[in-house]
Amino acid sequence: MTENNAVLTTNPGADQRSLDGVDLWWRAANYLSAGQIYLRDNPLLRRPLEPEDVKARLLGHWGTTPGLNFIYAHLNRVIAEQDQDVLFVTGPGHGGPANVANAWLEGTYSEIYTHVGQDEDGLRELFKQFSYPGGIPSHAAPETPGSINEGGELGYSLAHAFGAVFDNPQLIAACVIGDGEAETGTLAASWHSSSFLDPVQDGAVLPILHLNGYKIANPTVLARMPEEQLAALLTGYGYEPIFVTVQDARDTVRAHEEFAHALERALSGIRQIQEKSRSDQAAPSEYAPRWPMIVLRSPKGWTGPEEVDGKPVEGTWRAHQVPLSEVRTNPDHLAQLQSWLQSYRPDELFDGEGRLRAEIAGLAPQGDKRMSATAYANGGRLLQDLKLPAYGGHAVVVNQPGTERVSPMKNLGSWLREVVRLNPENFRIFGPDETASNRLQDVYEATDKVWQQRLDEVDEHLARAGRVMEVLSENLCQGWLEGYLLTGRHGVFNCYEAFVHIVDSMFNQHSKWLQVHRELPWRQPVASLNYLLSSHVWQQDHNGFSHQDPGFIDHVMNKKPEVVRVYLPPDANTLLAVTEHCLRSRDYVNVIVCGKQPSLTWLGPEDARNHCERGIGVWDFAGSERPGEEPDVVLGCAGDVPTVEAVAAAALLREQIPELKVRLVNVVDLMRLQDAKEHPHGLEHRDFDRLFTTDKPIIFAYHGYPWLLHRLTYRRTNHDNLHVRGYVEEGTTTTPFDMAMMNRIDRYQLAIDVIDRVPSLGASRTGLRQQLQDLRLQSLRHTREFGEDPDAITEWTLPAQ
Amino acid sequence: MTENNAVLTTNPGADQRSLDGVDLWWRAANYLSAGQIYLRDNPLLRRPLEPEDVKARLLGHWGTTPGLNFIYAHLNRVIAEQDQDVLFVTGPGHGGPANVANAWLEGTYSEIYTHVGQDEDGLRELFKQFSYPGGIPSHAAPETPGSINEGGELGYSLAHAFGAVFDNPQLIAACVIGDGEAETGTLAASWHSSSFLDPVQDGAVLPILHLNGYKIANPTVLARMPEEQLAALLTGYGYEPIFVTVQDARDTVRAHEEFAHALERALSGIRQIQEKSRSDQAAPSEYAPRWPMIVLRSPKGWTGPEEVDGKPVEGTWRAHQVPLSEVRTNPDHLAQLQSWLQSYRPDELFDGEGRLRAEIAGLAPQGDKRMSATAYANGGRLLQDLKLPAYGGHAVVVNQPGTERVSPMKNLGSWLREVVRLNPENFRIFGPDETASNRLQDVYEATDKVWQQRLDEVDEHLARAGRVMEVLSENLCQGWLEGYLLTGRHGVFNCYEAFVHIVDSMFNQHSKWLQVHRELPWRQPVASLNYLLSSHVWQQDHNGFSHQDPGFIDHVMNKKPEVVRVYLPPDANTLLAVTEHCLRSRDYVNVIVCGKQPSLTWLGPEDARNHCERGIGVWDFAGSERPGEEPDVVLGCAGDVPTVEAVAAAALLREQIPELKVRLVNVVDLMRLQDAKEHPHGLEHRDFDRLFTTDKPIIFAYHGYPWLLHRLTYRRTNHDNLHVRGYVEEGTTTTPFDMAMMNRIDRYQLAIDVIDRVPSLGASRTGLRQQLQDLRLQSLRHTREFGEDPDAITEWTLPAQ
Repeated sequence: MTENNAVLTTNPGADQRSLDGVDLWWRAANYLSAGQIYLRDNPLLRRPLEPEDVKARLLGHWGTTPGLNFIYAHLNRVIAEQDQDVLFVTGPGHGGPANVANAWLEGTYSEIYTHVGQDEDGLRELFKQFSYPGGIPSHAAPETPGSINEGGELGYSLAHAFGAVFDNPQLIAACVIGDGEAETGTLAASWHSSSFLDPVQDGAVLPILHLNGYKIANPTVLARMPEEQLAALLTGYGYEPIFVTVQDARDTVRAHEEFAHALERALSGIRQIQEKSRSDQAAPSEYAPRWPMIVLRSPKGWTGPEEVDGKPVEGTWRAHQVPLSEVRTNPDHLAQLQSWLQSYRPDELFDGEGRLRAEIAGLAPQGDKRMSATAYANGGRLLQDLKLPAYGGHAVVVNQPGTERVSPMKNLGSWLREVVRLNPENFRIFGPDETASNRLQDVYEATDKVWQQRLDEVDEHLARAGRVMEVLSENLCQGWLEGYLLTGRHGVFNCYEAFVHIVDSMFNQHSKWLQVHRELPWRQPVASLNYLLSSHVWQQDHNGFSHQDPGFIDHVMNKKPEVVRVYLPPDANTLLAVTEHCLRSRDYVNVIVCGKQPSLTWLGPEDARNHCERGIGVWDFAGSERPGEEPDVVLGCAGDVPTVEAVAAAALLREQIPELKVRLVNVVDLMRLQDAKEHPHGLEHRDFDRLFTTDKPIIFAYHGYPWLLHRLTYRRTNHDNLHVRGYVEEGTTTTPFDMAMMNRIDRYQLAIDVIDRVPSLGASRTGLRQQLQDLRLQSLRHTREFGEDPDAITEWTLPAQ
Repeated sequence: MTENNAVLTTNPGADQRSLDGVDLWWRAANYLSAGQIYLRDNPLLRRPLEPEDVKARLLGHWGTTPGLNFIYAHLNRVIAEQDQDVLFVTGPGHGGPANVANAWLEGTYSEIYTHVGQDEDGLRELFKQFSYPGGIPSHAAPETPGSINEGGELGYSLAHAFGAVFDNPQLIAACVIGDGEAETGTLAASWHSSSFLDPVQDGAVLPILHLNGYKIANPTVLARMPEEQLAALLTGYGYEPIFVTVQDARDTVRAHEEFAHALERALSGIRQIQEKSRSDQAAPSEYAPRWPMIVLRSPKGWTGPEEVDGKPVEGTWRAHQVPLSEVRTNPDHLAQLQSWLQSYRPDELFDGEGRLRAEIAGLAPQGDKRMSATAYANGGRLLQDLKLPAYGGHAVVVNQPGTERVSPMKNLGSWLREVVRLNPENFRIFGPDETASNRLQDVYEATDKVWQQRLDEVDEHLARAGRVMEVLSENLCQGWLEGYLLTGRHGVFNCYEAFVHIVDSMFNQHSKWLQVHRELPWRQPVASLNYLLSSHVWQQDHNGFSHQDPGFIDHVMNKKPEVVRVYLPPDANTLLAVTEHCLRSRDYVNVIVCGKQPSLTWLGPEDARNHCERGIGVWDFAGSERPGEEPDVVLGCAGDVPTVEAVAAAALLREQIPELKVRLVNVVDLMRLQDAKEHPHGLEHRDFDRLFTTDKPIIFAYHGYPWLLHRLTYRRTNHDNLHVRGYVEEGTTTTPFDMAMMNRIDRYQLAIDVIDRVPSLGASRTGLRQQLQDLRLQSLRHTREFGEDPDAITEWTLPAQ
């Protein structure tokens, strides 16, 4: 590995004049970055700095910023020279000043935000708004032109970068990875993404590991391990690292030369891999190519104060945030800030009106090639509608409700196969090794799982190119999909319901991104992020308590109503209708929860579509109402297993208490339960009252934690009569019906609940109540004795018509 | 790296007789594992297998099991020979049959579960219960003797192993890592744990990467990359890999020899590092030692059916679960099962009564050295109470409520410093690079942050040994702490509130573990997992919307009430009282949320303790009730910032509407709001009604998402009058008071809410209402103009007494 480890000492190829331009740009970007952190006035230092020129609260992170500016300036040089499409992904936390500074230098910022113009007033505004109440965040964010990656919660940059270049063969994502974020789990796993990137169908990621040595308060693992260990690690991750180490912070000429050379070498390495793979004569390689990457060791807070109050700052963790913290009260600090800012020679950068001098502005790439203006970072501009096949041919024919047993997920797989066929370039399915386990295997008739490592004879459905992305990391699936969506494509993430909590935090960040993105007129709508959660809490079979958790719904419901949607289709046809709807939608996070086991189909294709459009409705075939009369009791249900149990309970009651008028209400769109004032899908109170009555008992069988339903309905007229059964954290490795019994959501319990709560029944039904209790116990005993549910349970589900 | 890569070909040192014993043990364990997956009767094959001998539902995972048994058998040999304490951590998913089989062979299983005896009946029970309704899970679980790691959700084994050996210098954790789980984020990050393990104060982890090549349906990245790339990767992670590759599945003699040799080499490598580091003459090494590890390539489903229905099974993904799936209906499968089970020669393993033959039983280590019986896997057996310093000396003196400004976290840090001093061997503080950012830096007066890589002059508070564990990975912090607690020690995890969602899923798994563990009489209570969440939603300053999320509380509240506790101390003294209580507690997950900024202290030490013991109470000093009269309105508050705003609103109202009787109720223990029937800390209805009245308006200022409070109180008499203000997902980079205003939890809004809801005020107060609205707008304008909150806001918080 000697070659890779070697610090470059040869003369680089970039000519000196173009590097002078890079340095000029870098100085300008550094000036603008420091200005954002400190100044609220006097943006061009036309007069000596006064304390009042400085912001009252000094917020922001200088440490990583000059390194980001350095990389950005160099990328601009090669973009301008090579007319290359580059997406810049800013991994290090709080690098916002860099992105904003460069966007302003490129003119993009003022094009989008016209109140931040290209003159002294604009500069003043640019500086003041940063990390200021009512202003802009200190990290890259939706507001930041050219960004698809929030720089607050760390670790997702590399996964986003890979997602962005999938199916974008012409694109390079230059992904700057902070050595802090490199310690996170998601980032550590993301390196292996190159085992899933096809050099033919996909573009390339250029990882630039930015070692500035420190996090907030500590050195970083990657920066402090022996250099040969780091080289081995990056080689082991599948890359060919090119090291650039800034030995002397003051020798910027040499730093520019070395980095320019490294960048050229990396880009030429990428091009070689691509040309070889894409050439007709290419022999398929046995393993994934070793992609080039760059390791840049540069001082934290480079070009900032070397020392403050006698302590070293540049090159240490002390440069992490605001190197000079007492500028308003300590004249020494103020003077030091003045000379620091002057060191960038602003008069050489800006003309008398604060306009960027033409020779600097002219260094920027043109139009959409500017990284701050690229359409890839505003994916809605590139978004094509999915071509969606009619799902009629995939729907289950239902002559009588509840007679056909079909796996909803298996059935959906056949429709998704056609989606894959119709959209060979902008639709992918992501999953942690579970696409077949979740029964979507029919898609493999149309495509394969992407895999770049060795292929063996025994492998099935693995290929270099394909539409299915499988890796045993929910974090990677989520990160790839986010990158894919935000660059203007479509996708689905299928996952075990319990384990999707692994990406709770990533969901948070993506939904927050969408919430802000929706409010920005210049950001075009992107495809929704669709979760398809199967292998859910009620159907675990092999798996135990650890696999039983329906709480992702609760987590999702905490986000802004404009952004989140939750669907619980009860059968195969409603799953088709809901999924089609979600794939057409924009700017949402859609959560669909549905089982994979063969289960009863209730509604024909047309009824299913109508039911899903309404999101909630009375199922006459299951109830025992009489026209024109109010029911005695309402059985509500949401989720596939609860629906089976509720329908079965209704049938039991019809048989045993024929005079009882039971209404069954099924909910597909969980948001319908909320007040119309709380959620755009919410029902008006009068409609809710019409469905659930204003005074009759409601027994509700719900897929998840029961209290969520109370939260959604506590303002409803009839809430005091609502009794919810759901998952109450009772579980183990057992049968689905045993799970229902453990959590008391089974048909017998629901019928008992009705008996207990309809006043007109009461004491006269103690016999029936006892009988139902006995049936519960018998079923339980059978299950425990024979290891399977009694036939009477698994088969007995049909309401007599 | 030639030496490390080399496949062993030399003659190993283990003598042949002891390896014959290993093989015998392995066969026995494999037989018991296959038996668990398949049989409900005929456990010793005394007669030919009949379909009815086989379980109706075949559930379980054969694939990884024989490899686990192989490793376990070899470890037993060296434990018995070297009298070494070893904790076995089973990383691969669904390896349960192996753990259970070995525990039975060692006798531990029958000692704990007396109904599963050491005879034929016991074997029948052992087999039948596995993955059976009412039985035991298919993965390692709390029920599994010798386990501290749930084998359901993957990725946490290595972090658990490191947590287990911290401060256990005599212990080796043998951690088997599946090549599937190795793709997860947490596992990928966990390799770097060796940068945080001190060979002097800590024990050692022996990672055994078990490459059997496949996940559920795919090959694995680590198994399919070029061998030299894998070697580079593991070297880069800081290990010295020893490769053992089973070239021929049938040549088990050679496999035993090679693995025995590798294991001896690894253990001797560990001992060398330890002896060198621990010797008095040892020169401190510049970098972390390169610890040995083993890579075992063995066929998936080793010793199982080679082919089924003409397709290869052993050594492929088809061996993942149940290799023969139609045993009850397909006579060929039944016959194949019979010959597979017979291949282990059960008559050589068990005597006529189904007892393990003495020569095999005698191979097990003795007593607590048995890995299934080790006290390290039942940490409560080793748990010592923490020595907790009196916190009187650390409490803030409060002459008048709301006059002293103290950072609660900073103050807590000084007390934690003493906890560290008093407990130098069984207490650690974990955090993702945020311990100082969260203001606990006083602990550095007593200890350091653990760091094994290069130390530089500029570093502060870094050392080889210490009590503070900082790495920029919430997953690692959580995993280490879990391992540390489950082996009988104590700890705190301090974290930014928003980013603790990164470990939502790990919290789920730990709380589920605790729930089951509590029900097992043989498992001794362990210390609670304590989250100290600071840098919370209301106090972000530098950080934007991505840092604002109080939803972890909601997530936690979905778990079993017996296991979870949530505390929102409003000031420094209550934070002390709550933290002390949590550090004394057992078998819970405690969540404490408290700010780090200097803020007002309300209660003196004694009052604080009493208030926290009650968990909820009326603050007379803040309200304007008169003795014996009911209030006109109740102002509730929970959380530090909401408490300031509620107290300020009460003061505003007292000044402006002196005749209004306001009661202020502060809640520290969130569970108090629940019904006593729902949670052990819940208030009885009559007590709740006494505090909140049965008919007066309640305006509640709550730290998190407001709907949680409705969920907790919807059955309370006065719920219809409850109006909750909380975080409604409005945020950006701004001041704390601006955050309060954006989410309408500020004092002015609370006072307006009171005016709007107290019927007796109404129209007569439109002037005051308008005045309050104007004050809100003025504050907002000031903040946006000057970048800081007006003095009137930051200072004006004292209720006139």
